Amino acid sequence: MRIAVDAMGGDQAPRSVVEGAVLAAQEYPQAEIMLVGHEAQIKQESPATLPGNIRIVHAEDKISSDDEPVRAVRRKKQSSMVVAGQLVKNGEADAMISAGNTGALMATGLLVIGRLPGIERPALAPMLPTMDGKGVLALDLGANMDATAEQLLQYAVMGSIYRSKVNGMDKPRVGLLNVGTEEAKGNEVVKQAYALMQEAPIHFVGNVESRDIFQRNCDILVCDGFVGNILLKTMEGTAGTIFGVLKEEFTRSFMSKLAAAVLKPGLVRFKKKLDYTEHGAAPLLGVNGLVLKSHGSSDANAIKNGIRQGLHVLEQNVVGSIQEEISRK
Amino acid sequence: MRIAVDAMGGDQAPRSVVEGAVLAAQEYPQAEIMLVGHEAQIKQESPATLPGNIRIVHAEDKISSDDEPVRAVRRKKQSSMVVAGQLVKNGEADAMISAGNTGALMATGLLVIGRLPGIERPALAPMLPTMDGKGVLALDLGANMDATAEQLLQYAVMGSIYRSKVNGMDKPRVGLLNVGTEEAKGNEVVKQAYALMQEAPIHFVGNVESRDIFQRNCDILVCDGFVGNILLKTMEGTAGTIFGVLKEEFTRSFMSKLAAAVLKPGLVRFKKKLDYTEHGAAPLLGVNGLVLKSHGSSDANAIKNGIRQGLHVLEQNVVGSIQEEISRK
Repeated sequence: MRIAVDAMGGDQAPRSVVEGAVLAAQEYPQAEIMLVGHEAQIKQESPATLPGNIRIVHAEDKISSDDEPVRAVRRKKQSSMVVAGQLVKNGEADAMISAGNTGALMATGLLVIGRLPGIERPALAPMLPTMDGKGVLALDLGANMDATAEQLLQYAVMGSIYRSKVNGMDKPRVGLLNVGTEEAKGNEVVKQAYALMQEAPIHFVGNVESRDIFQRNCDILVCDGFVGNILLKTMEGTAGTIFGVLKEEFTRSFMSKLAAAVLKPGLVRFKKKLDYTEHGAAPLLGVNGLVLKSHGSSDANAIKNGIRQGLHVLEQNVVGSIQEEISRK
Repeated sequence: MRIAVDAMGGDQAPRSVVEGAVLAAQEYPQAEIMLVGHEAQIKQESPATLPGNIRIVHAEDKISSDDEPVRAVRRKKQSSMVVAGQLVKNGEADAMISAGNTGALMATGLLVIGRLPGIERPALAPMLPTMDGKGVLALDLGANMDATAEQLLQYAVMGSIYRSKVNGMDKPRVGLLNVGTEEAKGNEVVKQAYALMQEAPIHFVGNVESRDIFQRNCDILVCDGFVGNILLKTMEGTAGTIFGVLKEEFTRSFMSKLAAAVLKPGLVRFKKKLDYTEHGAAPLLGVNGLVLKSHGSSDANAIKNGIRQGLHVLEQNVVGSIQEEISRK
């Protein structure tokens, strides 16, 4: 299983990416890792001898987090991200993983690798945190702003296959994000999607509300990329604000510092649970090849885990199963 | 100033509503309050003598929280909510306030009272909490699921007038809820709305992200009712989950209970600040009369404050100013 790793993407690249790739190569001998990026810079971060299942693929340029995604992908043909995408496109790699510019990675999936036949729009599908730790796979969280009802249905199908195959779930529950649970709720597109999903070969549990996600009210949450992205940022903003205030309260006085010391371990555990970046890399589903987005702040361990996730998704042949299911219709 | 109060709406109705109306009548002698509801039940909760500026308007029926909004408003002509709406419609009251079924109140505004000429869709505009306590007026949070760019612009204009007049803000900042702050971001409707708002006589500060709302990144947040409702419920759900876990952590052991005792006062203050139901009643803007939605869990004090808010909005002639601004175009 051949994985192209964007060595130049992410806040701590190339160091953490190279370190993570080396760890993964050692731990998963079945992986063939291509570290794509500036050779001299990669070598600087590498041990004297790289493991035998890593090779460097030189790419002169890189896409930064400030680059305008589509333009960067179109113009920077020699960037590490686009070169990694080309490796997948040409069949030289089975998957690619990047911690770089999210928009550019989605554009790489769409423009360099291309969609699966029959898929209208790929969807980015991170795992949202839940109290039981099992997570809700949410799609689309930003790849496609205006989704039609048909596209929402495709998200539901792709998400169902992913959770069945990758998480071993028997009948993963699909929920449609809405403003209420009653059938008649929502905007026009969502009402149409509700009707389509009822007829589809998925385990559709109806409309779900965002306030119940932490209680894992479904296993796959379907929404368009505009609403999904706002949902995610609202969770982040609310949690960040509350934890910020907690920190202030904890340091207000000598007594509160003592009190904080007692409570901290439990809260740190909980905060980690809430952090969706702890829940692995997000697949870009619907692309003709496996594309994984690792969080921008990924350290070596997160990169290693992303590569492990990639191997697992490849073993389960998720992309092939999506292709098969979509072409059946 | 004549205010019709829906005595039968809310979790604690009619008791808390009657009590709140009595308090308001005593404190604000300029108010003429009509308590609309079942006369016998209202009298049961009333003091022996009602203040001279309260009178009871009998309504045989009521709309419950489970009623399907539009159907209930159409069929229950004798419900307290619809009768209150009729009083506004007929010019017998200047405003109405209800803590009952939100959907039904929006339907009452639209179907019984009617829109202001030139307004395409009324918008529900609650105040979202911010760290500085000044709040962000968000509209629409659920009245109208599918908004056009033109309708979003009308929300921006109505919200600007409300904050100028009611909160005395000089140049209230209008933000357009989006997935990023760059101009090109968003779905098609939002991109069109951006262009319209740039040309409009409002203080438009561009796209804003939901994670920054607590820092009051704008004074008026514009979004369609679908996204707005999901935004609000995500805030509620995230905050509720975190405070639930805090409560658990606080009671985990003897030591943690001691620690909690030290930290609690600050956290309770903060939790109250985050609770948007503490920020007054939400106006339904764009209706031909003043309609205020008080939170379902309103106690007597919240009802009294809602009536005070109603008086203030009437004094500032917000509805007339909206009418004037819209007809100018």
